[in-house]
Amino acid sequence: MKKTLLLLSLVAAPVLAGEGKWTPQQVLELSPAWLKAQGLQLPPNKLWDPKRGTGLLAGTVNTGGCSGSFISASGLIITNHHCAFSIIQEHSSPQKDLITDGFLAKSQSEELPGKGSRVQVPRGFKDVTAEVNAAVPQGADDLARYKAIDRKQKELVAECEKRPATRCQVATFDGGVNYTLVDAVELQDVRLVYAPPRAVGEYGGEEDNWMWPRHTGDFAIIRAYTAPDGTSAAFSDKNVPYKAEFFFPLSTEGVKPGDFVMVLGYPGTTFRTLLADEMAERQARYYPRIRDVLGEAIRILEAEGEKDPAGKIAVASQLKGLHNVYKNAGGQLAGLKRGHIVEKQRDTEAATVAWAQKDAAKWGDALKAREALLQEQQEAAKTFDREFLLNMSGRLARGPALATAVSRLSMERAKPDLERRPEYMDREVPRIKDRLEREQKNLFLAADKALLHAFVKRAQALPQDARITSVDAVFGKTYSEKDVTAKIDSLYAGTKVLTLAERLKMADESVGQLAARRDPLLNFGMELAKEQAALDDTRDRRQGASSRLRPAWRKAVMAQAGKPIAPDANSTLRVSFAKVQGYTPRDGALYLPQTTLTGMLQKHTGEEPFNAPEKVRAAAEAKKFGRWVDPRLKDVPVDFLADADTTGGNSGSPTVNGKGQLVGVNFDRVWENVANDFGYNPDVARNVNVDVRYLLWQLDQVEDADALLRELNIRKGKPVAREAR
Amino acid sequence: MKKTLLLLSLVAAPVLAGEGKWTPQQVLELSPAWLKAQGLQLPPNKLWDPKRGTGLLAGTVNTGGCSGSFISASGLIITNHHCAFSIIQEHSSPQKDLITDGFLAKSQSEELPGKGSRVQVPRGFKDVTAEVNAAVPQGADDLARYKAIDRKQKELVAECEKRPATRCQVATFDGGVNYTLVDAVELQDVRLVYAPPRAVGEYGGEEDNWMWPRHTGDFAIIRAYTAPDGTSAAFSDKNVPYKAEFFFPLSTEGVKPGDFVMVLGYPGTTFRTLLADEMAERQARYYPRIRDVLGEAIRILEAEGEKDPAGKIAVASQLKGLHNVYKNAGGQLAGLKRGHIVEKQRDTEAATVAWAQKDAAKWGDALKAREALLQEQQEAAKTFDREFLLNMSGRLARGPALATAVSRLSMERAKPDLERRPEYMDREVPRIKDRLEREQKNLFLAADKALLHAFVKRAQALPQDARITSVDAVFGKTYSEKDVTAKIDSLYAGTKVLTLAERLKMADESVGQLAARRDPLLNFGMELAKEQAALDDTRDRRQGASSRLRPAWRKAVMAQAGKPIAPDANSTLRVSFAKVQGYTPRDGALYLPQTTLTGMLQKHTGEEPFNAPEKVRAAAEAKKFGRWVDPRLKDVPVDFLADADTTGGNSGSPTVNGKGQLVGVNFDRVWENVANDFGYNPDVARNVNVDVRYLLWQLDQVEDADALLRELNIRKGKPVAREAR
Repeated sequence: MKKTLLLLSLVAAPVLAGEGKWTPQQVLELSPAWLKAQGLQLPPNKLWDPKRGTGLLAGTVNTGGCSGSFISASGLIITNHHCAFSIIQEHSSPQKDLITDGFLAKSQSEELPGKGSRVQVPRGFKDVTAEVNAAVPQGADDLARYKAIDRKQKELVAECEKRPATRCQVATFDGGVNYTLVDAVELQDVRLVYAPPRAVGEYGGEEDNWMWPRHTGDFAIIRAYTAPDGTSAAFSDKNVPYKAEFFFPLSTEGVKPGDFVMVLGYPGTTFRTLLADEMAERQARYYPRIRDVLGEAIRILEAEGEKDPAGKIAVASQLKGLHNVYKNAGGQLAGLKRGHIVEKQRDTEAATVAWAQKDAAKWGDALKAREALLQEQQEAAKTFDREFLLNMSGRLARGPALATAVSRLSMERAKPDLERRPEYMDREVPRIKDRLEREQKNLFLAADKALLHAFVKRAQALPQDARITSVDAVFGKTYSEKDVTAKIDSLYAGTKVLTLAERLKMADESVGQLAARRDPLLNFGMELAKEQAALDDTRDRRQGASSRLRPAWRKAVMAQAGKPIAPDANSTLRVSFAKVQGYTPRDGALYLPQTTLTGMLQKHTGEEPFNAPEKVRAAAEAKKFGRWVDPRLKDVPVDFLADADTTGGNSGSPTVNGKGQLVGVNFDRVWENVANDFGYNPDVARNVNVDVRYLLWQLDQVEDADALLRELNIRKGKPVAREAR
Repeated sequence: MKKTLLLLSLVAAPVLAGEGKWTPQQVLELSPAWLKAQGLQLPPNKLWDPKRGTGLLAGTVNTGGCSGSFISASGLIITNHHCAFSIIQEHSSPQKDLITDGFLAKSQSEELPGKGSRVQVPRGFKDVTAEVNAAVPQGADDLARYKAIDRKQKELVAECEKRPATRCQVATFDGGVNYTLVDAVELQDVRLVYAPPRAVGEYGGEEDNWMWPRHTGDFAIIRAYTAPDGTSAAFSDKNVPYKAEFFFPLSTEGVKPGDFVMVLGYPGTTFRTLLADEMAERQARYYPRIRDVLGEAIRILEAEGEKDPAGKIAVASQLKGLHNVYKNAGGQLAGLKRGHIVEKQRDTEAATVAWAQKDAAKWGDALKAREALLQEQQEAAKTFDREFLLNMSGRLARGPALATAVSRLSMERAKPDLERRPEYMDREVPRIKDRLEREQKNLFLAADKALLHAFVKRAQALPQDARITSVDAVFGKTYSEKDVTAKIDSLYAGTKVLTLAERLKMADESVGQLAARRDPLLNFGMELAKEQAALDDTRDRRQGASSRLRPAWRKAVMAQAGKPIAPDANSTLRVSFAKVQGYTPRDGALYLPQTTLTGMLQKHTGEEPFNAPEKVRAAAEAKKFGRWVDPRLKDVPVDFLADADTTGGNSGSPTVNGKGQLVGVNFDRVWENVANDFGYNPDVARNVNVDVRYLLWQLDQVEDADALLRELNIRKGKPVAREAR
């Protein structure tokens, strides 16, 4: 990324203290004086050594969709309870219910291996921008451009992964300003060391999810092992604990309001570099349409479920998924409005345009690129209604969705493996078949027909120049309730798609074989699949255009800013600098930044999701705080807020103080902060962390985890009750 | 009350600053230094002149279930919007919808008379303890004792009310330590001057009821008129505004956190002088039983309503009532637990017992009285289950409730008017008939039968020595689902009680006539009514015992305290000294003591109950704050919290600063403070007031109420927008 960084002032401070998911390299571009003033007590080059391309930040690992961090030299890793859940589940049985009871290995020999568990430790970052751009043929159109870049990225990854136990990816920064090859060691022997009972790790459950005040102990400890020579190896009795060069010792002091903290990790995807009009489209159309279409689907499933208890169970899982997306869309809309995020983006953009216009010779291309991006967006907006509905067809009625899935698989299988879309390559087929099988238990015909009916009605209301032709062919161009009902009944009556054994057979058949079945629902699915495939090509072309245009514009934005701008999240290692602080959720109310053990007890109802385990309650009620009491709170702290800039993927991120000691583990954002993905609103940008002292209190006063505490170099605290004697 | 007060230290300060609904006389017993330190800038004898038996506190009036206060020398009174609602409603029509649009009289001639509206202005308080006690015959048993006291009170009231336009009551303090004859002038010509639109006066509706943060403008202004000679008179064109000797000028400065305020008014009923065991009984049995029995009734009505849309409408009103009591019981239980109220009462009581035991010669009677009260309570507890159910029979199934109502009326009418229970005296009959008629629209047979079924099942589970014999006689002693269903069907099939015309005829019939009807449901109701009447006698006897015993014990409690103790609320004039402050509703959250106009706007959804009127929104959005902006909040304040000691009846109470100026109007308590009726918990004892500056902002910036503001001696503020020109 050197080229980019040369454009920036070398000692700049960001505008808003908490804003920015900085790349390791960018940390060195930030003002050391500013970092020190924030509270960083280490020299920035301890965090990241540009010569070696590694440093303390590399103590942060990727656990597959989550983050985690080394907390000892002998491979102990802390992450979230929900991130380690699959190992806990793997070793749970009715006889030995680790999910309910939690788990603590008294010695290394008791640690429990996780079958599919992997941990990636960052090893290197290489700028491959020149190679990626060079791969695009002269005069390529946007679709060809997309395909060339895609192939080049696959080649770079394949080459990189030739070394053993290596995982690589080409990450795109700022829409293509920079491409970086990220190289990581994958540790394959990962074992469970400690997990609290689910009623601690998930305390509050769905009810408290996204909420504050929070009292969740969302932590678990695992350990990575290697072969005796230190190389990555699959599970073996001979393996030894991984030797971590970088790790975060646990702080016993914890945090207080106003304290500086850093949150490190692998945030997934954000949208802050979108143009204001692109954001506005999401605000004005995409999220409201999600609310509209999914809200209707939720009402249909709930109403049909009320009529049939078995149906209610069948649709429960689909309903939960729909609710989640529906709720998230509501949070995005509320946050975009509250934070005036689009308006702010528009102001920033206008300032950049005005600035660039003063030096048209230098920035004329950037301005033209922006215009072209807006043009692209306007073009895409014209077919928004049709594309949105076509996308949703896989999400709503299961009948056509399953028919489409087998059709699409069959169409793609006709191509050589490397020319298929990645999700239909041979290595994905077993997973596709699993899904085709699992879906059987979710089928509830009455609800499914009602969902399809609603979909057809919407499709028949599309404008004449943007129709879903497969719907028109089967159902006609104008809506009639009676006709649609009758046609759907006949599709479902005549199909074998909903019969499990037949459906699994279809998954192995060619397009010709499928057609020969003359199955009406399958035929409808095949036509839908063709339209979806065409839409995928359209999107690839748009992606190609974006990779051609956006870098020019983003370079102007960065040059005008004159200081580092953190790129959008892309699942690569980042760090956010933050302060422990509360916020104002609404007029007349204030949320404090810390919660306590006593507050956890106050929430206890004895029923899920507020059913604290007896041993935890006993220690809390007896005020056995040990040495983990916070002098200000006069209580054991449980969770705390900071204004760190996080998103999905930051689950399990270490929250570290200015000395590089672990003070907490990030596990959520607050509800008011969902739209943070579009822009940072300092008033409500709060991430939720579990306080390391709550973990230590559990290990010390509840679990008597002496061996583990010794390894973590923690002196066990005397319980207050004993001191009082 | 002089005798009582002589027992008390003359310059004492209460233990908890905010605790105590003080009588006017008690204010003079409180330490002047303490009152000054709290923030009272007036000499206490300006509040209350013991020689005249009146003072500034008498500027507080009783508007019939609500409080209000004079705010001008010419009879202007401020109270809550919900307290003035009946006048607003009286003058509303589809053509001129004052409820929706609000109302402002531009001049006195436009003010709207309220038909049934009355205002009572306190005129005198007379200690009648000796007369009441002397009325009890030597050797009277407890029931005779109750009846003698009841009759004496009626006689005193009748004598007092011989003067024109006078309303009197004998108020019982401390269970009978003192009886006071309260004498008030009743003003009969009361007119509406100003009411905001309902969407201001009830902003937040049921959803925000009991809640904080709050943004309700619950205020209205009325004016009392008299005959030209100053005497109370019914409405007449010749009447002139009432000349108020005492009134509270409006403060334009408002309040800030920490400020001293007094809340004056007529609080209804509290239970703080109960013994700990009496409170514990309510906590352990009464409120949980309410939750149990009413919870079941709610589930039945909701389930039956789901099956029948018309039935759903029919039961809506009953359901709302049940929800309200059910929710209140939940609040009482939560507050009793949170405030450890019973435990604290037990500690206080134990201290008094220990203290009294040291001087058994003097306090032996008090100790014996306490033992006897506990004995009474234990006796009553034995038949709790039966009595609770018998009481509930009027609340649940409408069929037997209506049958019981006509039966009871018929039974009581057989007695001379003065010997009947007050609620069945001739003057009440029209109201009873109104109710018998109105109930018709609430009938929904399926739900009603299910409610009766649940009631019978509970009655049949009562212990053998405490049965409801009327249930046993009709349904047998043991429960059988089939038999009860069949019997209920036959009761309902054979009755005319549910036919409106027949029911109204029954209301005029004798017991003999009713019996001759041989109506099975009516017969059941008659037997239930007899058991209810017997239970009323039991209660009167208990009341007689309490009036015999409780005073002795309360005198010991007061003597041991050695400082004033405010008596339980009994609808007489009281004052509470308080501070403006927020509170901690739960761990990790803090409620601030003030809300703002901007916060009101943020709640606006455009739908009830958050649908702010357009003219209000326009002014708020334009930040036309005028001079009503709070310098700290930089916004117009809307509502504020104080730790004043209030309960039902305090609605409309003036909230006054240390100079005697009105700074707000009380209108609610917070949810966490419902159990305040049993004991004051300083952590959560918060009353909710509307800030006078919100009223003034409405009058100035929204209504342009120049004439009214001039009369209130308020300079109209320039809107910010004009100042900016």
